[in-house]
Amino acid sequence: MIIVMSHNASAREVEAVLKRLENTGFKVHLSEGVERTIIGAIGDRTRLGDMGLEAMSGVEKVVPVLQPYKLASRAFHPGDTVVTAGNIAIGGGQIQVMAGPCAVESREQLLEAAHQVREAGATILRGGAFKPRTSPYSFQGLEEKGLELLAEAREATGLKIVTEVMDARTLPLVAAYADILQIGARNMQNFFLLREVATVDKPVLLKRGPSATIEEWLMAAEYIMAGGNHRVILCERGIRTFENYTRNTLDVTAVPVVKYLSHLPVIVDPSHGIGKWRFVPAMARAAVAAGADGLLIEVHPDPAHALCDGPQSLTPENFAALMEDVRRVAALMDRGVGRREVCGARGENRNVGG
Amino acid sequence: MIIVMSHNASAREVEAVLKRLENTGFKVHLSEGVERTIIGAIGDRTRLGDMGLEAMSGVEKVVPVLQPYKLASRAFHPGDTVVTAGNIAIGGGQIQVMAGPCAVESREQLLEAAHQVREAGATILRGGAFKPRTSPYSFQGLEEKGLELLAEAREATGLKIVTEVMDARTLPLVAAYADILQIGARNMQNFFLLREVATVDKPVLLKRGPSATIEEWLMAAEYIMAGGNHRVILCERGIRTFENYTRNTLDVTAVPVVKYLSHLPVIVDPSHGIGKWRFVPAMARAAVAAGADGLLIEVHPDPAHALCDGPQSLTPENFAALMEDVRRVAALMDRGVGRREVCGARGENRNVGG
Amino acid sequence: MIIVMSHNASAREVEAVLKRLENTGFKVHLSEGVERTIIGAIGDRTRLGDMGLEAMSGVEKVVPVLQPYKLASRAFHPGDTVVTAGNIAIGGGQIQVMAGPCAVESREQLLEAAHQVREAGATILRGGAFKPRTSPYSFQGLEEKGLELLAEAREATGLKIVTEVMDARTLPLVAAYADILQIGARNMQNFFLLREVATVDKPVLLKRGPSATIEEWLMAAEYIMAGGNHRVILCERGIRTFENYTRNTLDVTAVPVVKYLSHLPVIVDPSHGIGKWRFVPAMARAAVAAGADGLLIEVHPDPAHALCDGPQSLTPENFAALMEDVRRVAALMDRGVGRREVCGARGENRNVGG
Amino acid sequence: MIIVMSHNASAREVEAVLKRLENTGFKVHLSEGVERTIIGAIGDRTRLGDMGLEAMSGVEKVVPVLQPYKLASRAFHPGDTVVTAGNIAIGGGQIQVMAGPCAVESREQLLEAAHQVREAGATILRGGAFKPRTSPYSFQGLEEKGLELLAEAREATGLKIVTEVMDARTLPLVAAYADILQIGARNMQNFFLLREVATVDKPVLLKRGPSATIEEWLMAAEYIMAGGNHRVILCERGIRTFENYTRNTLDVTAVPVVKYLSHLPVIVDPSHGIGKWRFVPAMARAAVAAGADGLLIEVHPDPAHALCDGPQSLTPENFAALMEDVRRVAALMDRGVGRREVCGARGENRNVGG
Repeated sequence: MIIVMSHNASAREVEAVLKRLENTGFKVHLSEGVERTIIGAIGDRTRLGDMGLEAMSGVEKVVPVLQPYKLASRAFHPGDTVVTAGNIAIGGGQIQVMAGPCAVESREQLLEAAHQVREAGATILRGGAFKPRTSPYSFQGLEEKGLELLAEAREATGLKIVTEVMDARTLPLVAAYADILQIGARNMQNFFLLREVATVDKPVLLKRGPSATIEEWLMAAEYIMAGGNHRVILCERGIRTFENYTRNTLDVTAVPVVKYLSHLPVIVDPSHGIGKWRFVPAMARAAVAAGADGLLIEVHPDPAHALCDGPQSLTPENFAALMEDVRRVAALMDRGVGRREVCGARGENRNVGG
Repeated sequence: MIIVMSHNASAREVEAVLKRLENTGFKVHLSEGVERTIIGAIGDRTRLGDMGLEAMSGVEKVVPVLQPYKLASRAFHPGDTVVTAGNIAIGGGQIQVMAGPCAVESREQLLEAAHQVREAGATILRGGAFKPRTSPYSFQGLEEKGLELLAEAREATGLKIVTEVMDARTLPLVAAYADILQIGARNMQNFFLLREVATVDKPVLLKRGPSATIEEWLMAAEYIMAGGNHRVILCERGIRTFENYTRNTLDVTAVPVVKYLSHLPVIVDPSHGIGKWRFVPAMARAAVAAGADGLLIEVHPDPAHALCDGPQSLTPENFAALMEDVRRVAALMDRGVGRREVCGARGENRNVGG
Repeated sequence: MIIVMSHNASAREVEAVLKRLENTGFKVHLSEGVERTIIGAIGDRTRLGDMGLEAMSGVEKVVPVLQPYKLASRAFHPGDTVVTAGNIAIGGGQIQVMAGPCAVESREQLLEAAHQVREAGATILRGGAFKPRTSPYSFQGLEEKGLELLAEAREATGLKIVTEVMDARTLPLVAAYADILQIGARNMQNFFLLREVATVDKPVLLKRGPSATIEEWLMAAEYIMAGGNHRVILCERGIRTFENYTRNTLDVTAVPVVKYLSHLPVIVDPSHGIGKWRFVPAMARAAVAAGADGLLIEVHPDPAHALCDGPQSLTPENFAALMEDVRRVAALMDRGVGRREVCGARGENRNVGG
Repeated sequence: MIIVMSHNASAREVEAVLKRLENTGFKVHLSEGVERTIIGAIGDRTRLGDMGLEAMSGVEKVVPVLQPYKLASRAFHPGDTVVTAGNIAIGGGQIQVMAGPCAVESREQLLEAAHQVREAGATILRGGAFKPRTSPYSFQGLEEKGLELLAEAREATGLKIVTEVMDARTLPLVAAYADILQIGARNMQNFFLLREVATVDKPVLLKRGPSATIEEWLMAAEYIMAGGNHRVILCERGIRTFENYTRNTLDVTAVPVVKYLSHLPVIVDPSHGIGKWRFVPAMARAAVAAGADGLLIEVHPDPAHALCDGPQSLTPENFAALMEDVRRVAALMDRGVGRREVCGARGENRNVGG
């Protein structure tokens, strides 16, 4: 890292910083400019967090040189990581589509949705049993009953199941049913929960927080990987901006950026990113064209009667049309959609936009 | 609420919306303009969340008329709520200062800090035993050992204890030691945790999320109150903005606004809001001048060696000077600082900026 | 519009609002709920701005029902508008690519760039003669000399010219050379300048402000159209968010949204939106897949020696590869790239994400 | 500045960067770490902008060490700058209040407002003759007629006049009437206009852009100073955030921060910052408690009939009460309000929050 001393820092203040760095095991290097003295320090980036150098007198700012994450970085693992859920490979060049209702509402609703999305080509069924709602008066999910229905839908369709885990205490229950554990956007920095899912032998779909930077998102992935679970799938789902016509602003650029900075697979959730079904197909195309490894799409047999997120849910017919579009864009990216594997190499190159 | 139909909505679409509203128990009212048909609906605001009207065809937008929160609103409870922690009253006109280190690091550090902040006039000791850190490689807190040290400091000084609870599973442990349970900014929408603290008989200090609106913040308070715990203290701690010289942007205006919209006490944490100790005293003065019921200030015996947040921690000397300033501003607001009660009435009036 | 009265509004206060509305020519309609009285007002939306109803006592909030823009709305003009610059049609189904250096630096640099982008399939040459720079010490552009070089490049290549006008006083000069006048992002709400370009018989490329909402952007277009110039091309170029790895966050979703709300053509500038050349091709593909009518791309013969925006400029080789990608995605959208026209109908349908 | 090379940068790439820096007149310094090679470069910060080093292959990022502004920095001018408008000193320890209507509407309205604010203790009259409005259909100001009325009000009351200049072409006209030229928030980065006001012998009140960082704001001041006009008054008027209950979020922390980074006087406009008159007095107190050198307050004889910004305008009665509050807070800061000078020293110390 680099420490910039303030223009009136005394020799003693500089000395104190040097000594502190050396005592912490950093190799230091002094460079005295006309207006500023600068100290370069080489050592274990992970120790930086606890040093509080900026609190030392005479220090103007501390500039980290390396990214704070290691295990999640492409430098650490140059090839693309492929995360598997049973026979479904995410990040292996083939595009996987996860689809289904926002919440599990009933046996009929879920099974109908499951058959419909499978028909259209989805390989993974989404559906919330535990729902984070901004109002305590809103439907909070069917909880365990919802998990049972998801398992039944898996039996009936062969689809894998991705569902959200909201809390460490209910993790064992959710993990007993899910094929992929979803960490919701609001929990991206729930470090307790991140540490817990790190101990479970299941892939984790980590949603980006509504106002998290890419670095903070990768640091959340680092928590899970540092805890021992390297099967992390990143999911861009829109960030909060001033634009209020859409629910969030889908950061499609995050796809090629994350593929460049990290080796983890990246999927996109245009339904939450936009909040209006009408614009979901266009952005599904855009996400795949930008190099996404998959999509997470809300589909409901009857959006107008959905207990949550109806406005952003596609009808089965619109979803089928979306899948047609996605197949055409995927082909253009030399990628397929669904189960079959393809050579990831070119896909990867495309991902960095070359 | 008001439903605005799109300019080309058909009579049948309007009919469908009216029927849906009536079936849900709303009293409806139709008003047909030249360019738009508008439906007014009167009924239980708390049912709005689950209706998904925006998903019905022909609906352009749904405009809620009432705030989504009830128990937290001043309309529901016109007088100021006073939350007590033992003999300390927060929101009763008297200004209470909570101070101490970011994290409990050691017996010596904590006891020294406790005596110093008590000396200067603080009535409540802050200190983290469980620390949410953005890096898995940073100091994560002393956990139970830290709680024991907080209890020892309470014994030694008579200060009350506020400390963060990060997870439902460790809640019983934290609640066994704390006088006030802190919900951190990143957990403001951890609804599982909110529901849990709602069941505990302890005051809850609810920090505003880094990019939460005031309405979302009050909805989080509503979660706790709806669950049965009305002893909520709101804490403004800075929101994320484009300004990067400061750690966050302290939204001081939120103080008079929340005092106007809600009856709950509001305190301000300038240390996290700014991230640089140098500017904390000026903003502590500003917060009290704007009508805050208290302050949360980071103080460390030796900031340069703090294991976290050193750069924003005041030395005991600077904290004592800050308390002098705060007393002078409080006096001007007809308020005192610390234990003794004063007539809240004028304080309240001042709070709404009159 | 709808006026929501506060829950304790008096009959006299309601009366006053009704009278004010009627005197301003609105047809009013009263609806008294249990907790709130609501007034619906039907009339000329454009008079709303000056009424200041929210300042009347007893008024809680005013909710506009209609968008504040008229001429720019699709309701006003259902078909897609096609803006022509000579024989180049923008918005007519065919995708047009505008490319060239950030700034005109020299005769050699500009002519080389012009030939290279024409070679690759661009139809319009971009290049700044007047440069808005955040530092007064940075290169401010060649001004009139730069305009002369642009004209020479047009002669030499047959490309049309788009260049920025920064100020009403230099408008006649710029208009004498440019085929398309560019309003920069920082000037999107420079209303003086908007009123001036409204009087010129040239197409205007209106960049979205870095933190403008879509509605504010369309209101800026409304200024130009209300002044008599309906040849407006909208350009999404990234909005400011917390993400700092990229220069801005490219709001690709704005493309289908604006195509839905407005009849004006929309193009995308991924170079400024991202700020790093490496990710520009992926986002150019995404923009076209989302339905953009064109692209604005920075290309420099030698980015490492560019006097501005080198980091986001493509080399001619990378630009040629990007154009290949763009042609493939355009074909998939049933659109072509460059001069020849195609049936706009399907293109339009695709644009709204169907 | 510091150049961080990517971890796989070749020796030749490092060499090329070194040569480029040396040729541009920088003294360079190489430091080779385990994972990264870092280059320190010492030289004229103002040349940095045009180098485009980040476009050179092998460069990961460029980190500036010094602030990009010079003339506006406190390092360049350690003492507080006092800007005078006739016999009124801004920044000299004494707090100056500028007040009046958003727009000049009529002779009666302006003269009435002028007498009322003077009565209450304001020394400078605000009022817009040229109005930047987001809608082309809103009142755009009385233009020259408005300037004449401002001059008449100055005659009648002895107040100085501050009014906005929107465009270089109308600058001579506005400058002929105004005592202080206001640059509106939306024009903060209208560099053409900044260069023009730099040539006029009048103080300039520079409003912070709605989403400008403090550094960008000081760079705008640098434009004016670099052009020869050092009489710049900075005005914080609220920044755009996600909070939508208030019009903007008033960044009160910017006051002590700017006083620390720069020598220029800083005033605060809570009326635009908040947008609701009810909260203006509380925030006026907060601004002065934080160290502001003055206030800009909207006052209208009849806010409910104001042609613009009625909802945020105070009645003369509320303004008089606000001035009482301000005097009390100012006294506590050892400052006075209005004409008479006091020793700036302690005021200055208070400003940096000591």
